[in-house]
Amino acid sequence: MSLSTAQIQPGGAIPTSVTVKEDAADQPFKFENLTGKNIFVGVPGAFTGTCTRQIPGYIESYDKFKEKGVQNIYVLAVNDVFVLKAWKDSLAPNGTPIHFIADDTGAFSGALGLLFDASPRLGSPRSKRYVLITEGSSVETVLVESVPSELTITAADRVLALL
Amino acid sequence: MSLSTAQIQPGGAIPTSVTVKEDAADQPFKFENLTGKNIFVGVPGAFTGTCTRQIPGYIESYDKFKEKGVQNIYVLAVNDVFVLKAWKDSLAPNGTPIHFIADDTGAFSGALGLLFDASPRLGSPRSKRYVLITEGSSVETVLVESVPSELTITAADRVLALL
Repeated sequence: MSLSTAQIQPGGAIPTSVTVKEDAADQPFKFENLTGKNIFVGVPGAFTGTCTRQIPGYIESYDKFKEKGVQNIYVLAVNDVFVLKAWKDSLAPNGTPIHFIADDTGAFSGALGLLFDASPRLGSPRSKRYVLITEGSSVETVLVESVPSELTITAADRVLALL
Repeated sequence: MSLSTAQIQPGGAIPTSVTVKEDAADQPFKFENLTGKNIFVGVPGAFTGTCTRQIPGYIESYDKFKEKGVQNIYVLAVNDVFVLKAWKDSLAPNGTPIHFIADDTGAFSGALGLLFDASPRLGSPRSKRYVLITEGSSVETVLVESVPSELTITAADRVLALL
């Protein structure tokens, strides 16, 4: 996993050559053919404290995001698909239309320059806490918490206010 | 993480120089000063199918292991401490004396030569499915599933029968 790639800037593009997974370990896919406005929420780790406080805001405000024209919300973490699914089930026992995406190799956040070395706490490189607002495959807004364990500019209500 | 270290053999020793974690991300420790008979159960991944079938056998048979003189059972996975804790809570909502250990860097299973490349399914090197029966820091019995997704010789009842 590359920790040295330059961080994505507004005007950049969502990586379309790397694979991620949702729900199924044997069905990797790429973010090709993105259309409309989408939100990508990168988090350091499923089941960690801050992430587990942050994501319910997106689940609860999902309809408000839809009213603002958002097509999909993707929550991504450098965890495997089984962990992401268990985390989704624990956060949304009745289900949620939000997509929980396993960036299990870190290739997606790595291509965006949004990994950091989380070895002391989590044993491996992980995603910074970030939000991307995209239009098609173009990244229009980049929000990155300067301290990954903090939740400020990437909170759901703060992101909603930008739409 | 080293995938090339020779696999531990009976008569070898539990690595005492690498750190793992239990419950707390900021309290790494080493398996120093092991005494008596202990069981180490390495699994490829928290929340994966086979592991989630395997571990309840150890939880349910815990008293039988104690009757056989086992001091502690350690379940280890190359997952972070938050994932291990969530998995433990899901498998044993009323608690269990079994220790769920985060080998979050893979250093412990790596030193034992018991990692494999699980990238296609899980994105990273993971622990093979293994059981070690130890006496002090000496490894007396080594059981390794030849196919990590299978559960045969490392099932709780099979291990109990060896004690």
